[in-house]
Amino acid sequence: ASKDGNFTFAINGRMQVGSQYNFINDVLPATGANLPNELNSGVTLRRARLGVEGTFYKIWDYKFEYDFSRGNGSVESGITDAFLRMNVTKPFSVKVGSFKEPFSLEEAASNRFLTFIERHMSVNSFVDNPNTYKTGIGANYAVPRFQFGVAFQTEPVGAWSAASTTVNAAGNNSRNNGSGDQGWEGIGRITGRPWMEDETKFLHVGISAGHTHVNTQYLANGTINVGPNQTGGGGGMAFFAFPGTNVDRTNVLNTGNLSIGNKGAPGSRRIDSYDRFGAESWLVHGPFSAQAEYLRTNINGQGYDGEHFTGYYGFLSYFLTGESKAYHVRNGAANRIKPKQNFQWNGSGWGAWEIAGGYDYINLNSGVVRGGKMDMVRFGLNWYPHTHVKIQNNITYVLNVDTSGSPIPRTAGFNNADLSSFLTQVQVDF
Amino acid sequence: ASKDGNFTFAINGRMQVGSQYNFINDVLPATGANLPNELNSGVTLRRARLGVEGTFYKIWDYKFEYDFSRGNGSVESGITDAFLRMNVTKPFSVKVGSFKEPFSLEEAASNRFLTFIERHMSVNSFVDNPNTYKTGIGANYAVPRFQFGVAFQTEPVGAWSAASTTVNAAGNNSRNNGSGDQGWEGIGRITGRPWMEDETKFLHVGISAGHTHVNTQYLANGTINVGPNQTGGGGGMAFFAFPGTNVDRTNVLNTGNLSIGNKGAPGSRRIDSYDRFGAESWLVHGPFSAQAEYLRTNINGQGYDGEHFTGYYGFLSYFLTGESKAYHVRNGAANRIKPKQNFQWNGSGWGAWEIAGGYDYINLNSGVVRGGKMDMVRFGLNWYPHTHVKIQNNITYVLNVDTSGSPIPRTAGFNNADLSSFLTQVQVDF
Amino acid sequence: ASKDGNFTFAINGRMQVGSQYNFINDVLPATGANLPNELNSGVTLRRARLGVEGTFYKIWDYKFEYDFSRGNGSVESGITDAFLRMNVTKPFSVKVGSFKEPFSLEEAASNRFLTFIERHMSVNSFVDNPNTYKTGIGANYAVPRFQFGVAFQTEPVGAWSAASTTVNAAGNNSRNNGSGDQGWEGIGRITGRPWMEDETKFLHVGISAGHTHVNTQYLANGTINVGPNQTGGGGGMAFFAFPGTNVDRTNVLNTGNLSIGNKGAPGSRRIDSYDRFGAESWLVHGPFSAQAEYLRTNINGQGYDGEHFTGYYGFLSYFLTGESKAYHVRNGAANRIKPKQNFQWNGSGWGAWEIAGGYDYINLNSGVVRGGKMDMVRFGLNWYPHTHVKIQNNITYVLNVDTSGSPIPRTAGFNNADLSSFLTQVQVDF
Repeated sequence: ASKDGNFTFAINGRMQVGSQYNFINDVLPATGANLPNELNSGVTLRRARLGVEGTFYKIWDYKFEYDFSRGNGSVESGITDAFLRMNVTKPFSVKVGSFKEPFSLEEAASNRFLTFIERHMSVNSFVDNPNTYKTGIGANYAVPRFQFGVAFQTEPVGAWSAASTTVNAAGNNSRNNGSGDQGWEGIGRITGRPWMEDETKFLHVGISAGHTHVNTQYLANGTINVGPNQTGGGGGMAFFAFPGTNVDRTNVLNTGNLSIGNKGAPGSRRIDSYDRFGAESWLVHGPFSAQAEYLRTNINGQGYDGEHFTGYYGFLSYFLTGESKAYHVRNGAANRIKPKQNFQWNGSGWGAWEIAGGYDYINLNSGVVRGGKMDMVRFGLNWYPHTHVKIQNNITYVLNVDTSGSPIPRTAGFNNADLSSFLTQVQVDF
Repeated sequence: ASKDGNFTFAINGRMQVGSQYNFINDVLPATGANLPNELNSGVTLRRARLGVEGTFYKIWDYKFEYDFSRGNGSVESGITDAFLRMNVTKPFSVKVGSFKEPFSLEEAASNRFLTFIERHMSVNSFVDNPNTYKTGIGANYAVPRFQFGVAFQTEPVGAWSAASTTVNAAGNNSRNNGSGDQGWEGIGRITGRPWMEDETKFLHVGISAGHTHVNTQYLANGTINVGPNQTGGGGGMAFFAFPGTNVDRTNVLNTGNLSIGNKGAPGSRRIDSYDRFGAESWLVHGPFSAQAEYLRTNINGQGYDGEHFTGYYGFLSYFLTGESKAYHVRNGAANRIKPKQNFQWNGSGWGAWEIAGGYDYINLNSGVVRGGKMDMVRFGLNWYPHTHVKIQNNITYVLNVDTSGSPIPRTAGFNNADLSSFLTQVQVDF
Repeated sequence: ASKDGNFTFAINGRMQVGSQYNFINDVLPATGANLPNELNSGVTLRRARLGVEGTFYKIWDYKFEYDFSRGNGSVESGITDAFLRMNVTKPFSVKVGSFKEPFSLEEAASNRFLTFIERHMSVNSFVDNPNTYKTGIGANYAVPRFQFGVAFQTEPVGAWSAASTTVNAAGNNSRNNGSGDQGWEGIGRITGRPWMEDETKFLHVGISAGHTHVNTQYLANGTINVGPNQTGGGGGMAFFAFPGTNVDRTNVLNTGNLSIGNKGAPGSRRIDSYDRFGAESWLVHGPFSAQAEYLRTNINGQGYDGEHFTGYYGFLSYFLTGESKAYHVRNGAANRIKPKQNFQWNGSGWGAWEIAGGYDYINLNSGVVRGGKMDMVRFGLNWYPHTHVKIQNNITYVLNVDTSGSPIPRTAGFNNADLSSFLTQVQVDF
């Protein structure tokens, strides 16, 4: 950083080490040349990110971040943030490049500041799983009691190779060599704190909406590269969900590609666009916090008639050591917890301790689409020895899973499954 | 950096966000099980690079740079610079590792300092596309009015996996497990400024030459893994060209692999080496600049008899705000533009503004090779709000494209195509 | 770094540029649709790593390191260290994340501080090749004359995609979507310096042991995805070895997957676990050093009855310029060499010069397993111009290689081969 403040530069990063042990794991037996359906236990580097950020002449700033563990499990390798931002005024800024869609309270929060280890099912399914980091142009306005963000974004930064593409199965292939124009979206979120005594007592509310155009590319003879369970180069879009696990993020629910069948063939369908909506609320009152969201995705296209997916969740959390949830003004979402006393070996401090519990529901069955539906509960115990280390423990318990009628063998194998897992995550960020 | 200057260290990086909209896009219709031939519109992270560099005991320096966006479009993932350099005297240095070939004025310039968004067709086809960052040993001598570089280099640093190899289709696969000895080359460039009043008024001229040995590996039974349009593990070499676009860099021209057919079979060919030559000139006179290059590649091998590819380009540029093109002495090429006045919201400065226009020609048809030929014009408007941000706009217009006789369906689909695109690029570097 | 020392941060890295020329290369001729068996000459970026490390509140530290050149040759792309460590007392620490297994003297040494360019065959085959960086929890205790490390670790951090997996062929595929629970291991190493006059005169001895559980996953119908020479998603484990080369690290010896054949079929086998043992000794006496290790791996599982692989090596080294080998207390292994006088162009110093020679043996034939056996000698000349640059030259000469009876064509092609190579490596680290 220069002395006049015209040039600043910083490096940041995060590591999350996760483990999963499945103590209830009753699924349908696999048949034929299929692998068993049971969820698997194990350990993973959930995220390992490094980034740089800096400022030129106080008003231009930039950020680049890379996640080195993407692609190891079931999310993609790759770039997250990569943008140039111009701060027109103190609250108002415009950015160009790759950045997160402005959508949903839980998605807007950094994964470093989540209450549970994984995001809730509908947030993952509708926003995070299809790679929420998309390339385009966005504008933000943020003051302590009000925030909005709008963006025009295109398909997410794709994987390095088709071989490592396992998320957004049908949507993020490389877009050249005749694969069609990129999909694009207009999206926005507006939030505020209508009641606010101080930073430890407030009510946050907000709404999000987005319209996404999807590209489906047929071959010259009218056929398409994608089947119900395939990830070919023909575009389209799929939605899937997993039950809050962190190491084995198998898609228990799966719509399959929503563009299916040769052009004009009987029973063929083609997704042309989808519309997403979200409503969010969050109450903080001292050490107590309550958060809930409702999300809905409508499908538009040939062979569809009002199909829509829905999900919602709610949870309560409480700091045994008296801290409060913290607020990130620019994001309108959760922020870093600062323990009242750091942990010390001599017992003069124990860090912060937090308990949490909640309910989560998602339904990917609608009209002609049989993606399945599921609901579950989860419980958490979080330890924050100091501001930059966090150790989380979760128990997940699936209440009901209904995948009857799914044409995908792996998804069908989870019909009426009994699933419960013990998860841990150790996190350091800097 | 230590106080005695024996240890220095720095981090640098660049991000380029590009967009492409094809407003003229008339190509031949695709047939059968092929994707449409049209170019596609979209947005991409054209480059996202981070690097480190430093010095030990003043005479040893090192550099490592990685491009995180390679492989996303149609260039490879990977390492660019990765070398250790010993500065024997102030002008003379020797380096070992991965570094750019010393060849061509436009290739020698950093992509941060190009006048147009993309390099010209022959520079891309003969130098940049086959991954100009090769591993070997090189020597450089540079004083303000004279510069030369020579190198002995081997095949470029390959992709992480065969699946992400889309450039230098036949040449940069991993070289082990029986795929044959690596190819190698001797290459050099010599430039000078015979007329020079000051750093804003000078004439630069130079020549480049290189001999590259290519490895082609047959199977024990005399067959080969590569076909005219394939990227198997059998080595060989291909050249291709795209019409100045940045998001969809589809190979409109394509020679196919120049090693084709079983050993000794009728009609089989095998490239054994190729020779490249370049001549360059660049005149800077205050805000006015004129640059031109001529490149030629000769093919040697069985089944070839004097086949050669040629290309040339020329363009003019002018700074409306009075700046001059800047000169990088060590590279003998373009350098960073410093606006006379930085952009300010209050209107006290508008940064630097530059206009440019030029012509570009390439011919990959010669003797038995039907790679096609193409010429085009392009126009540019560049804004430099300050030294480290650059915003570029280009219009590309293809005059003629002739791919008649190409055995590759996608390339043949561009015969007599009408193509014109509007491109933008936002760049920040640090 | 903050002034109170509560926050520190550093960046480190290394680059190694290697070359290999095979001057004796007599192997069996390949037949049919196979590539030739000869080893290949070439140049490679052997390693290119960047890392960050730092400390919070003096007792918490973290490290993250990435090797950008993995996957280019025959080792994997990826993460090496990625852990959070808590320093409970000065000698005692606990860490969570991805870190090196505590096993073997030569493996414990950083590859920056090896005497020869490559590790010895049994260390590579049993420890380094299957990716020694595994994810789990470990504890270390180290004082100058005594050190131990124990760990509970799981399968290594896998490649980005199946396409780039070339090491631990059968063991490190992504562990989800029904591929079974991760394998795990308990492992430890204990070393000491029973005789020690000072840091230039000492005897180091130590032992290592580990038990590794291997996962093999059958399809529902009892078939398995893996064949003798395949890297399918069915798990299992293979061991292989290469003769000390650095660019073409072709697996001259190869056991093939030790889980083979359908469940219960005649001749089918399944590895359930393996046990590794190591004994090490190292004498340093001024400029003279002598090092030797013995390693053994026992195979357990269905169809196995006491099969075991063994290897050992020994070498001598001598500093012509009078330096001594250096000792890393925490690792109980080799450390950075500091020349008595740095190299200077004016001849006032020549850096450090070291010569070395040794013998290396490995046997992967045992019972039903025909992996082959090999022994070789190697000679080295190392130049250290200063502490952070090292230039190595090796000659490798294979004495005997016996791959008779191998079912793998490439491995069988090396039976009774005559192989000798000249290798170089230029290294800079910072």
